[in-house]
Amino acid sequence: MAGSKFSYVRNFELPDPLLPDTYIVFRLDGHSFHRFSDVHGFVKPNDKRALELMDQAALKLMEEYRDIVLAFGESDEYSFLLRRSASLYNRRETKIVTTLTSFFTSSYVFMWHKYFPDTPLQYPPSFDGRIVLYPREQHIRDYFSWRQADTHINNLYNTVFWALVQQGGLTTTDAHGTLRGTVSKQKHEILFTRFQINYNEVDERYRKGSVIVREEVRPTSSRASIDAVTGENAEESTVPDRLQPKKKKSKDKAPTQMTLLHCDIIKDDFWIARPEILAG
Amino acid sequence: MAGSKFSYVRNFELPDPLLPDTYIVFRLDGHSFHRFSDVHGFVKPNDKRALELMDQAALKLMEEYRDIVLAFGESDEYSFLLRRSASLYNRRETKIVTTLTSFFTSSYVFMWHKYFPDTPLQYPPSFDGRIVLYPREQHIRDYFSWRQADTHINNLYNTVFWALVQQGGLTTTDAHGTLRGTVSKQKHEILFTRFQINYNEVDERYRKGSVIVREEVRPTSSRASIDAVTGENAEESTVPDRLQPKKKKSKDKAPTQMTLLHCDIIKDDFWIARPEILAG
Amino acid sequence: MAGSKFSYVRNFELPDPLLPDTYIVFRLDGHSFHRFSDVHGFVKPNDKRALELMDQAALKLMEEYRDIVLAFGESDEYSFLLRRSASLYNRRETKIVTTLTSFFTSSYVFMWHKYFPDTPLQYPPSFDGRIVLYPREQHIRDYFSWRQADTHINNLYNTVFWALVQQGGLTTTDAHGTLRGTVSKQKHEILFTRFQINYNEVDERYRKGSVIVREEVRPTSSRASIDAVTGENAEESTVPDRLQPKKKKSKDKAPTQMTLLHCDIIKDDFWIARPEILAG
Amino acid sequence: MAGSKFSYVRNFELPDPLLPDTYIVFRLDGHSFHRFSDVHGFVKPNDKRALELMDQAALKLMEEYRDIVLAFGESDEYSFLLRRSASLYNRRETKIVTTLTSFFTSSYVFMWHKYFPDTPLQYPPSFDGRIVLYPREQHIRDYFSWRQADTHINNLYNTVFWALVQQGGLTTTDAHGTLRGTVSKQKHEILFTRFQINYNEVDERYRKGSVIVREEVRPTSSRASIDAVTGENAEESTVPDRLQPKKKKSKDKAPTQMTLLHCDIIKDDFWIARPEILAG
Repeated sequence: MAGSKFSYVRNFELPDPLLPDTYIVFRLDGHSFHRFSDVHGFVKPNDKRALELMDQAALKLMEEYRDIVLAFGESDEYSFLLRRSASLYNRRETKIVTTLTSFFTSSYVFMWHKYFPDTPLQYPPSFDGRIVLYPREQHIRDYFSWRQADTHINNLYNTVFWALVQQGGLTTTDAHGTLRGTVSKQKHEILFTRFQINYNEVDERYRKGSVIVREEVRPTSSRASIDAVTGENAEESTVPDRLQPKKKKSKDKAPTQMTLLHCDIIKDDFWIARPEILAG
Repeated sequence: MAGSKFSYVRNFELPDPLLPDTYIVFRLDGHSFHRFSDVHGFVKPNDKRALELMDQAALKLMEEYRDIVLAFGESDEYSFLLRRSASLYNRRETKIVTTLTSFFTSSYVFMWHKYFPDTPLQYPPSFDGRIVLYPREQHIRDYFSWRQADTHINNLYNTVFWALVQQGGLTTTDAHGTLRGTVSKQKHEILFTRFQINYNEVDERYRKGSVIVREEVRPTSSRASIDAVTGENAEESTVPDRLQPKKKKSKDKAPTQMTLLHCDIIKDDFWIARPEILAG
Repeated sequence: MAGSKFSYVRNFELPDPLLPDTYIVFRLDGHSFHRFSDVHGFVKPNDKRALELMDQAALKLMEEYRDIVLAFGESDEYSFLLRRSASLYNRRETKIVTTLTSFFTSSYVFMWHKYFPDTPLQYPPSFDGRIVLYPREQHIRDYFSWRQADTHINNLYNTVFWALVQQGGLTTTDAHGTLRGTVSKQKHEILFTRFQINYNEVDERYRKGSVIVREEVRPTSSRASIDAVTGENAEESTVPDRLQPKKKKSKDKAPTQMTLLHCDIIKDDFWIARPEILAG
Repeated sequence: MAGSKFSYVRNFELPDPLLPDTYIVFRLDGHSFHRFSDVHGFVKPNDKRALELMDQAALKLMEEYRDIVLAFGESDEYSFLLRRSASLYNRRETKIVTTLTSFFTSSYVFMWHKYFPDTPLQYPPSFDGRIVLYPREQHIRDYFSWRQADTHINNLYNTVFWALVQQGGLTTTDAHGTLRGTVSKQKHEILFTRFQINYNEVDERYRKGSVIVREEVRPTSSRASIDAVTGENAEESTVPDRLQPKKKKSKDKAPTQMTLLHCDIIKDDFWIARPEILAG
């Protein structure tokens, strides 16, 4: 073959299998999204359209990759948990991390116009991705607690900060100055006394971030009431896992659907109600 | 801090620096592009729009990442050479490979409508990416020779195959049967005697693939004549490296521009004329 | 400094930390020990002196490295379990695996003359080492079961094989032929009917391999009866963990001692009695 | 098979091939040799017996592993260069680094009594090992320059330091104080004016370290004169590479021998005279 004398260069591709039977967390972060959000006029402190677009891209990814059993998103980042028994791409790290990053990015751009019909994309946004392995259930609990605690801290700060700027008329410098050194309780007070905002009544989407769970579809969905409790409109947020003919393997697996929630995942309740997430 | 008791989970992120002073080849491949090209009606054996879109996404990537000094594309794959001294993201492998994959993907979807104005994207396409390190100049020469030899082999086969099907009226099964066991010379003969096609007159874009070089912009461009020779329309294919204000570092570097070629990169001429590609 | 212009070469040393909070199994294997055992006249099927030397080198290693909580040896191999919380050498893989391999090798050669007083070492023996990470308790149970099952299979085979050769007068070729295709039960029968050997009465050292556990030293050793049950002579096999003044860290840790056993580690009993092994 | 249900644990052993066609440097360092040299009464600043033992262990290693083409040793460390085309153990990193570390350690203990006939080994010494990859010739030149520059700096310091203590009667604290902030020239002066020692006449072994080269054995050794120049006693230092019957592969390779030198390897001369070292 003509190319055979060159094909030795393939030997420089080294294997990179992930440790078996270990939880795989895949996290995406927006690349230079500070600039991206400015250029595209994102509303502060939270742009609902932008967050919904992130959620929809995450849902698309979970539709496509059944090994993902849980996702959590806030701002311009999203974390995905793959079952510890996942054998996707023979657990080749780079193959997994690049394919998932690419598909998420593609979905984000593909669906942009639905969420920003009046704001054309100015340039192609990008994300970086990473994979972190966790050996034990507790690590996964703590990983997702870490992200949700981060959401809380950031959102509280941003909510007060932008209230000071947008309603209080402060410069951004002065707003940062006002908040320097304040603890959580003081931020709540500023919000309430100056702006009559009870932080606990702020939309859970912003306070809790986005949680997507994959659940088996049961004849009569016993989850409906729970969805109602979380204030989620099931029609919009539930994306059925279409049985696509190209995927033969999934034929004999139980059909699943994804549900988008904005609930606490730090306390035990969420996990006790869904033992299958950490089961393997 | 609220999240501090969970933040130990960050320690599970392990470092992955690439070996210093080693050539970095980054290659992208379309994920399930056989299906993607069918769904979007790509012309066989080569869809010029699809190839141009790939080229433009590659050019965008090179505009954004100055460490890329050479690229080669064919079909749904693209290879990029980063200077061996590149310090992009401190040479963190996953950061580099995911960010570049994401940006290329994003550009591809972002510019789709320009190349397929009458063919709406049906679903988000994706790519996988990988990084391969090469220690020596000869490996890089051989790597790119390997890809261009592959282009030649595939394109010759596909050109005869689709001539047999589209002009010869054969079924795809019969066309494969006709070609089984044939060597290069026989394929040339079938093309010429049955279809009056001189393979050497087929568009170089298809026979050679796409080559993108980064070159310093000189007061009077001495490359203009060479571009003319390669039959490239400079207005379309040359994308100036805009000096973007956000990038302070590049301010003091000489401005560069990318040139798209469809030329031989197996023989020495290409490399002798461009010693800077392998210089470091 | 004179060497400073060269010291950039240090940057090529890449980090290799092991995943945190994961069990570390370190396994050593004799390098070309078939030849080594021939040259030094090891008794077949089992040379007690050689096995005891392996055990003593393993004990030395455990004395030196407190993170090792369990070891299992058979023939010319030894496996060591490090606590999953071990922070030895900041969990740098190569540092750990080379240092432990070196120290074991050194101890083996250092103590050779005690176990082979009449057989001078002809040339320096060597071992290879490897580290395997396991995320969960069950993996560790299964890893050690795998090694002990291997001990059983090899020892039964070797016991019958050498009885056929040494007592039955067969050539080694004929002995292999006789055993080809036989199952465990048939091997037991050959041993019993031809050589009046009840395999279950063969020394447990050979049938079970060597197990070394690290245990806290308690005022009155409650383990004495158990040791008696396992037929172990505590005076010989227990090596006290000397409180070496150079090791400041271990000062405030409870003193431990190692106990050598030849007992079953596949069933639950061993592990139920020693929950601290897998505790962390 | 009895062990089959456990054997899945083997899948946790991950591949670790080294990048092909890249220089492999293997470096050993004594573990806690400060204490080891005290306990065994090493002469200060340099113990010739200890250095010769290191050299002999290095020579043994090179006899055993033909892929090693160059070695450099100083104090309790030794570096070995493996040809960039080496395929030893399929370039599996851990296999190579542990086997070489083990064999060196074993040789060191095995030959101890020859160099320290009156000093019994008190406890087993150990070494750590590491592998560093270098893509280019210049890196190898700089790596070995780095080590030899280090030898020079350390030996000059130690020579003055111990002269101050042993001949000058200073405490070690005072000796360190005297040397603090001095440059090379000042150290030379202290040596010469206070102790009548011309540093340039100190044994090259101490000033240059140990260099071992592998050379093909030619009918009439043209290297004899060069060896004489380096002041090396060929009878003692040259260890013929015995053609061992067990190694079939090496049968058709030219026989080689190792030569121990104490010469400059920073300047070009050494390398110009031995182009085969970096040839591949």
